[in-house]
Amino acid sequence: MRRVSLAHHPCPIARSADQIGDGSSLLLMRDTTLGFRRFAELQARLGIAPNMLTRRLETLTRHGLLERRRDASKPDRYEYVPTEKGLELVPVLLALGAWGNRWLAPRGAPLLNVHPKTRRRIDPIVIDRHSRRELKAGGVGVVAGPGAPAAVRRQLKQPLVFGGPP
Amino acid sequence: MRRVSLAHHPCPIARSADQIGDGSSLLLMRDTTLGFRRFAELQARLGIAPNMLTRRLETLTRHGLLERRRDASKPDRYEYVPTEKGLELVPVLLALGAWGNRWLAPRGAPLLNVHPKTRRRIDPIVIDRHSRRELKAGGVGVVAGPGAPAAVRRQLKQPLVFGGPP
Repeated sequence: MRRVSLAHHPCPIARSADQIGDGSSLLLMRDTTLGFRRFAELQARLGIAPNMLTRRLETLTRHGLLERRRDASKPDRYEYVPTEKGLELVPVLLALGAWGNRWLAPRGAPLLNVHPKTRRRIDPIVIDRHSRRELKAGGVGVVAGPGAPAAVRRQLKQPLVFGGPP
Repeated sequence: MRRVSLAHHPCPIARSADQIGDGSSLLLMRDTTLGFRRFAELQARLGIAPNMLTRRLETLTRHGLLERRRDASKPDRYEYVPTEKGLELVPVLLALGAWGNRWLAPRGAPLLNVHPKTRRRIDPIVIDRHSRRELKAGGVGVVAGPGAPAAVRRQLKQPLVFGGPP
Protein backbone atom coordinates (compact mmCIF):
# COMPACT_ATOMS: atom_id res chain seq x y z
CA MET A 1 0.00 0.00 0.00
CA ARG A 2 1.64 3.21 -1.19
CA ARG A 3 0.58 6.22 0.82
CA VAL A 4 0.47 9.84 -0.28
CA SER A 5 3.51 11.46 1.36
CA LEU A 6 2.51 14.06 3.90
CA ALA A 7 6.07 15.07 4.78
CA HIS A 8 5.61 18.59 3.42
CA HIS A 9 1.96 19.06 4.26
CA PRO A 10 1.42 22.33 6.17
CA CYS A 11 -0.36 20.61 9.07
CA PRO A 12 1.98 19.36 11.79
CA ILE A 13 -0.44 16.54 12.60
CA ALA A 14 -0.20 15.39 8.97
CA ARG A 15 3.59 15.57 9.02
CA SER A 16 3.68 13.58 12.25
CA ALA A 17 1.26 11.02 10.87
CA ASP A 18 3.61 10.62 7.93
CA GLN A 19 6.42 9.54 10.26
CA ILE A 20 4.58 7.62 12.97
CA GLY A 21 0.99 7.36 11.77
CA ASP A 22 0.72 3.62 11.40
CA GLY A 23 -0.10 1.40 14.31
CA SER A 24 3.06 -0.63 14.39
CA SER A 25 5.32 2.44 14.33
CA LEU A 26 3.51 3.79 17.38
CA LEU A 27 4.00 0.43 19.08
CA LEU A 28 7.68 0.32 18.13
CA MET A 29 8.18 3.73 19.72
CA ARG A 30 6.31 2.48 22.80
CA ASP A 31 8.44 -0.67 23.04
CA THR A 32 11.82 0.90 22.34
CA THR A 33 11.15 3.67 24.86
CA LEU A 34 10.14 0.97 27.36
CA GLY A 35 13.54 -0.70 26.82
CA PHE A 36 12.71 -3.48 24.31
CA ARG A 37 15.27 -2.79 21.63
CA ARG A 38 16.37 -6.00 19.95
CA PHE A 39 14.87 -7.22 16.72
CA ALA A 40 13.82 -10.62 18.12
CA GLU A 41 12.11 -9.21 21.20
CA LEU A 42 10.34 -6.51 19.17
CA GLN A 43 9.13 -9.15 16.75
CA ALA A 44 7.87 -11.37 19.57
CA ARG A 45 6.07 -8.46 21.23
CA LEU A 46 4.46 -7.04 18.09
CA GLY A 47 3.75 -10.30 16.29
CA ILE A 48 4.41 -8.84 12.84
CA ALA A 49 6.32 -10.39 9.95
CA PRO A 50 10.11 -9.90 10.00
CA ASN A 51 10.18 -8.10 6.64
CA MET A 52 7.55 -5.65 7.83
CA LEU A 53 9.40 -5.10 11.11
CA THR A 54 12.62 -4.45 9.16
CA ARG A 55 10.85 -1.90 7.01
CA ARG A 56 9.28 -0.10 9.97
CA LEU A 57 12.58 0.03 11.87
CA GLU A 58 14.38 1.37 8.80
CA THR A 59 11.76 4.07 8.32
CA LEU A 60 11.89 5.14 11.96
CA THR A 61 15.70 5.15 11.80
CA ARG A 62 15.73 7.17 8.57
CA HIS A 63 13.33 9.69 10.11
CA GLY A 64 15.65 10.02 13.10
CA LEU A 65 13.34 8.57 15.77
CA LEU A 66 15.51 5.52 16.39
CA GLU A 67 19.23 4.96 16.18
CA ARG A 68 20.67 1.58 15.20
CA ARG A 69 23.53 0.63 17.53
CA ARG A 70 25.65 -2.43 18.02
CA ASP A 71 24.42 -4.36 21.03
CA ALA A 72 27.06 -3.85 23.75
CA SER A 73 26.83 -7.44 24.99
CA LYS A 74 26.51 -9.12 21.54
CA PRO A 75 28.43 -7.06 18.97
CA ASP A 76 27.06 -9.06 16.02
CA ARG A 77 23.59 -7.84 16.89
CA TYR A 78 21.95 -4.45 16.75
CA GLU A 79 19.56 -2.63 18.94
CA TYR A 80 17.24 0.24 18.17
CA VAL A 81 17.57 3.10 20.61
CA PRO A 82 15.17 6.05 20.68
CA THR A 83 16.74 9.42 19.91
CA GLU A 84 15.74 12.70 21.58
CA LYS A 85 13.16 13.13 18.80
CA GLY A 86 11.85 9.64 19.55
CA LEU A 87 11.80 10.15 23.31
CA GLU A 88 9.77 13.33 22.89
CA LEU A 89 6.96 11.19 21.52
CA VAL A 90 6.53 9.63 24.96
CA PRO A 91 4.10 12.35 26.15
CA VAL A 92 2.03 11.84 22.99
CA LEU A 93 1.95 8.08 23.63
CA LEU A 94 0.90 8.74 27.23
CA ALA A 95 -1.97 10.99 26.09
CA LEU A 96 -3.02 8.31 23.59
CA GLY A 97 -2.83 5.61 26.28
CA ALA A 98 -5.01 7.70 28.61
CA TRP A 99 -7.62 7.93 25.85
CA GLY A 100 -7.38 4.15 25.39
CA ASN A 101 -7.86 3.52 29.11
CA ARG A 102 -10.91 5.76 29.09
CA TRP A 103 -12.61 4.47 25.94
CA LEU A 104 -11.27 1.00 25.22
CA ALA A 105 -11.09 -0.66 28.63
CA PRO A 106 -14.65 -1.50 29.67
CA ARG A 107 -13.38 -3.94 32.30
CA GLY A 108 -10.97 -1.48 33.89
CA ALA A 109 -7.59 -0.16 32.82
CA PRO A 110 -5.19 -3.04 32.12
CA LEU A 111 -2.17 -0.77 32.55
CA LEU A 112 -1.70 2.39 34.57
CA ASN A 113 0.96 5.06 34.66
CA VAL A 114 2.88 5.70 37.86
CA HIS A 115 5.86 7.68 39.02
CA PRO A 116 8.79 5.25 38.67
CA LYS A 117 10.11 5.92 42.19
CA THR A 118 7.12 6.82 44.37
CA ARG A 119 4.66 4.67 42.38
CA ARG A 120 2.11 7.40 42.75
CA ARG A 121 -0.57 7.29 40.07
CA ILE A 122 -0.03 9.51 37.05
CA ASP A 123 -2.95 10.62 34.86
CA PRO A 124 -1.76 12.23 31.65
CA ILE A 125 -3.74 15.26 30.46
CA VAL A 126 -2.98 17.86 27.80
CA ILE A 127 -2.84 21.50 28.87
CA ASP A 128 -1.69 24.84 27.47
CA ARG A 129 1.80 25.64 28.75
CA HIS A 130 0.86 29.31 29.27
CA SER A 131 -2.63 29.32 30.78
CA ARG A 132 -2.20 25.83 32.34
CA ARG A 133 -5.79 25.08 31.25
CA GLU A 134 -6.76 21.63 30.08
CA LEU A 135 -7.18 21.54 26.31
CA LYS A 136 -10.42 20.14 24.98
CA ALA A 137 -12.46 20.22 21.80
CA GLY A 138 -14.01 23.67 21.42
CA GLY A 139 -11.22 25.50 23.24
CA VAL A 140 -8.48 25.44 20.62
CA GLY A 141 -8.15 26.99 17.19
CA VAL A 142 -5.62 26.79 14.36
CA VAL A 143 -4.01 29.79 12.65
CA ALA A 144 -1.19 30.18 10.11
CA GLY A 145 2.29 30.23 11.64
CA PRO A 146 5.56 31.74 10.41
CA GLY A 147 6.24 28.72 8.17
CA ALA A 148 2.83 28.74 6.45
CA PRO A 149 2.61 28.81 2.65
CA ALA A 150 0.65 31.79 1.21
CA ALA A 151 -2.34 29.58 0.32
CA VAL A 152 -2.70 28.44 3.94
CA ARG A 153 -2.39 32.03 5.14
CA ARG A 154 -5.31 33.04 2.90
CA GLN A 155 -7.46 30.08 3.98
CA LEU A 156 -6.94 30.78 7.66
CA LYS A 157 -7.94 34.43 7.95
CA GLN A 158 -10.32 33.19 10.63
CA PRO A 159 -9.01 30.48 12.96
CA LEU A 160 -10.41 27.01 12.42
CA VAL A 161 -11.66 25.57 15.71
CA PHE A 162 -11.21 21.95 16.80
CA GLY A 163 -14.60 20.54 17.68
CA GLY A 164 -16.65 23.63 16.89
CA PRO A 165 -20.46 23.42 16.67
CA PRO A 166 -21.76 20.43 14.64
CA MET B 1 -2.61 -5.42 4.21
CA ARG B 2 -4.21 -7.38 7.02
CA ARG B 3 -3.09 -6.21 10.42
CA VAL B 4 -2.95 -8.21 13.64
CA SER B 5 -5.91 -7.00 15.71
CA LEU B 6 -4.80 -5.25 18.87
CA ALA B 7 -8.31 -4.61 20.14
CA HIS B 8 -7.83 -6.84 23.18
CA HIS B 9 -4.16 -6.20 23.77
CA PRO B 10 -3.52 -5.21 27.41
CA CYS B 11 -1.70 -2.00 26.47
CA PRO B 12 -4.03 1.01 26.00
CA ILE B 13 -1.63 2.47 23.43
CA ALA B 14 -1.95 -0.74 21.40
CA ARG B 15 -5.75 -0.67 21.67
CA SER B 16 -5.79 2.96 20.58
CA ALA B 17 -3.44 2.24 17.69
CA ASP B 18 -5.88 -0.45 16.60
CA GLN B 19 -8.65 2.13 16.23
CA ILE B 20 -6.78 5.20 15.02
CA GLY B 21 -3.22 4.09 14.39
CA ASP B 22 -3.01 4.65 10.68
CA GLY B 23 -2.16 8.02 9.26
CA SER B 24 -5.36 8.68 7.38
CA SER B 25 -7.57 7.88 10.39
CA LEU B 26 -5.68 10.45 12.46
CA LEU B 27 -6.20 12.96 9.65
CA LEU B 28 -9.89 12.13 9.38
CA MET B 29 -10.30 12.80 13.09
CA ARG B 30 -8.38 16.06 12.64
CA ASP B 31 -10.57 17.13 9.71
CA THR B 32 -13.93 16.10 11.09
CA THR B 33 -13.17 17.82 14.42
CA LEU B 34 -12.15 20.92 12.42
CA GLY B 35 -15.57 20.87 10.75
CA PHE B 36 -14.87 19.16 7.41
CA ARG B 37 -17.47 16.44 7.44
CA ARG B 38 -18.65 15.66 3.93
CA PHE B 39 -17.24 12.82 1.90
CA ALA B 40 -16.23 15.03 -1.06
CA GLU B 41 -14.42 17.61 1.06
CA LEU B 42 -12.65 14.93 3.11
CA GLN B 43 -11.54 13.26 -0.09
CA ALA B 44 -10.26 16.53 -1.54
CA ARG B 45 -8.38 17.35 1.67
CA LEU B 46 -6.80 13.93 2.19
CA GLY B 47 -6.20 13.02 -1.44
CA ILE B 48 -6.91 9.33 -0.90
CA ALA B 49 -8.89 6.96 -3.11
CA PRO B 50 -12.69 6.94 -2.53
CA ASN B 51 -12.78 3.23 -1.66
CA MET B 52 -10.07 3.70 0.96
CA LEU B 53 -11.85 6.75 2.38
CA THR B 54 -15.10 4.78 2.56
CA ARG B 55 -13.34 2.00 4.44
CA ARG B 56 -11.68 4.37 6.91
CA LEU B 57 -14.93 6.23 7.59
CA GLU B 58 -16.77 2.94 8.12
CA THR B 59 -14.12 1.75 10.56
CA LEU B 60 -14.15 4.99 12.54
CA THR B 61 -17.97 4.90 12.59
CA ARG B 62 -18.03 1.25 13.71
CA HIS B 63 -15.56 2.06 16.49
CA GLY B 64 -17.80 4.92 17.62
CA LEU B 65 -15.46 7.82 16.86
CA LEU B 66 -17.67 9.23 14.12
CA GLU B 67 -21.41 9.22 13.60
CA ARG B 68 -22.91 9.16 10.14
CA ARG B 69 -25.73 11.71 9.85
CA ARG B 70 -27.90 13.00 7.07
CA ASP B 71 -26.66 16.40 5.95
CA ALA B 72 -29.25 18.93 7.17
CA SER B 73 -29.04 21.04 3.99
CA LYS B 74 -28.81 18.13 1.51
CA PRO B 75 -30.75 15.14 2.88
CA ASP B 76 -29.46 12.79 0.16
CA ARG B 77 -25.95 13.27 1.51
CA TYR B 78 -24.26 12.25 4.72
CA GLU B 79 -21.79 13.86 6.98
CA TYR B 80 -19.45 12.32 9.52
CA VAL B 81 -19.69 13.97 12.92
CA PRO B 82 -17.23 13.23 15.73
CA THR B 83 -18.76 11.65 18.82
CA GLU B 84 -17.67 12.39 22.39
CA LYS B 85 -15.14 9.56 22.05
CA GLY B 86 -13.86 11.15 18.83
CA LEU B 87 -13.74 14.66 20.30
CA GLU B 88 -11.67 13.40 23.21
CA LEU B 89 -8.93 12.58 20.72
CA VAL B 90 -8.45 16.31 20.10
CA PRO B 91 -5.94 16.70 22.99
CA VAL B 92 -3.94 13.75 21.64
CA LEU B 93 -3.91 15.33 18.16
CA LEU B 94 -2.77 18.63 19.70
CA ALA B 95 0.11 16.90 21.52
CA LEU B 96 1.06 15.17 18.27
CA GLY B 97 0.88 18.45 16.35
CA ALA B 98 3.14 20.13 18.92
CA TRP B 99 5.70 17.35 18.37
CA GLY B 100 5.40 17.88 14.62
CA ASN B 101 5.93 21.63 14.95
CA ARG B 102 9.02 21.00 17.04
CA TRP B 103 10.63 18.26 14.94
CA LEU B 104 9.21 18.47 11.45
CA ALA B 105 9.06 22.20 10.72
CA PRO B 106 12.65 23.35 10.09
CA ARG B 107 11.39 26.57 8.44
CA GLY B 108 9.06 27.51 11.27
CA ALA B 109 5.68 26.19 12.35
CA PRO B 110 3.22 26.28 9.45
CA LEU B 111 0.24 26.16 11.81
CA LEU B 112 -0.13 27.31 15.39
CA ASN B 113 -2.75 26.75 18.05
CA VAL B 114 -4.57 29.70 19.53
CA HIS B 115 -7.49 30.39 21.81
CA PRO B 116 -10.47 30.71 19.44
CA LYS B 117 -11.70 33.98 21.02
CA THR B 118 -8.65 35.80 22.38
CA ARG B 119 -6.28 34.39 19.73
CA ARG B 120 -3.66 34.00 22.42
CA ARG B 121 -1.04 31.39 21.57
CA ILE B 122 -1.62 27.89 22.95
CA ASP B 123 1.28 25.45 23.39
CA PRO B 124 0.04 21.94 24.15
CA ILE B 125 2.04 19.98 26.73
CA VAL B 126 1.24 16.76 28.57
CA ILE B 127 1.20 16.85 32.37
CA ASP B 128 0.07 14.67 35.26
CA ARG B 129 -3.37 15.76 36.44
CA HIS B 130 -2.35 15.29 40.11
CA SER B 131 1.19 16.69 40.42
CA ARG B 132 0.72 19.09 37.45
CA ARG B 133 4.27 18.21 36.37
CA GLU B 134 5.15 17.93 32.72
CA LEU B 135 5.49 14.29 31.64
CA LYS B 136 8.68 13.32 29.88
CA ALA B 137 10.65 10.20 29.10
CA GLY B 138 12.25 8.92 32.29
CA GLY B 139 9.54 10.24 34.59
CA VAL B 140 6.72 7.78 33.91
CA GLY B 141 6.35 4.06 34.55
CA VAL B 142 3.76 1.43 33.68
CA VAL B 143 2.16 -0.97 36.16
CA ALA B 144 -0.69 -3.47 35.95
CA GLY B 145 -4.13 -1.94 36.46
CA PRO B 146 -7.43 -3.46 37.67
CA GLY B 147 -8.20 -4.85 34.21
CA ALA B 148 -4.82 -6.58 33.71
CA PRO B 149 -4.70 -10.28 32.80
CA ALA B 150 -2.73 -12.47 35.23
CA ALA B 151 0.22 -12.80 32.82
CA VAL B 152 0.63 -9.02 32.64
CA ARG B 153 0.40 -8.77 36.43
CA ARG B 154 3.29 -11.25 36.76
CA GLN B 155 5.43 -9.47 34.15
CA LEU B 156 4.99 -6.10 35.77
CA LYS B 157 6.04 -6.78 39.36
CA GLN B 158 8.49 -3.90 38.80
CA PRO B 159 7.19 -0.92 36.81
CA LEU B 160 8.51 -0.59 33.28
CA VAL B 161 9.81 2.94 32.71
CA PHE B 162 9.32 4.94 29.49
CA GLY B 163 12.72 6.09 28.28
CA GLY B 164 14.79 4.58 31.03
CA PRO B 165 18.59 4.39 30.68
CA PRO B 166 19.81 3.04 27.29
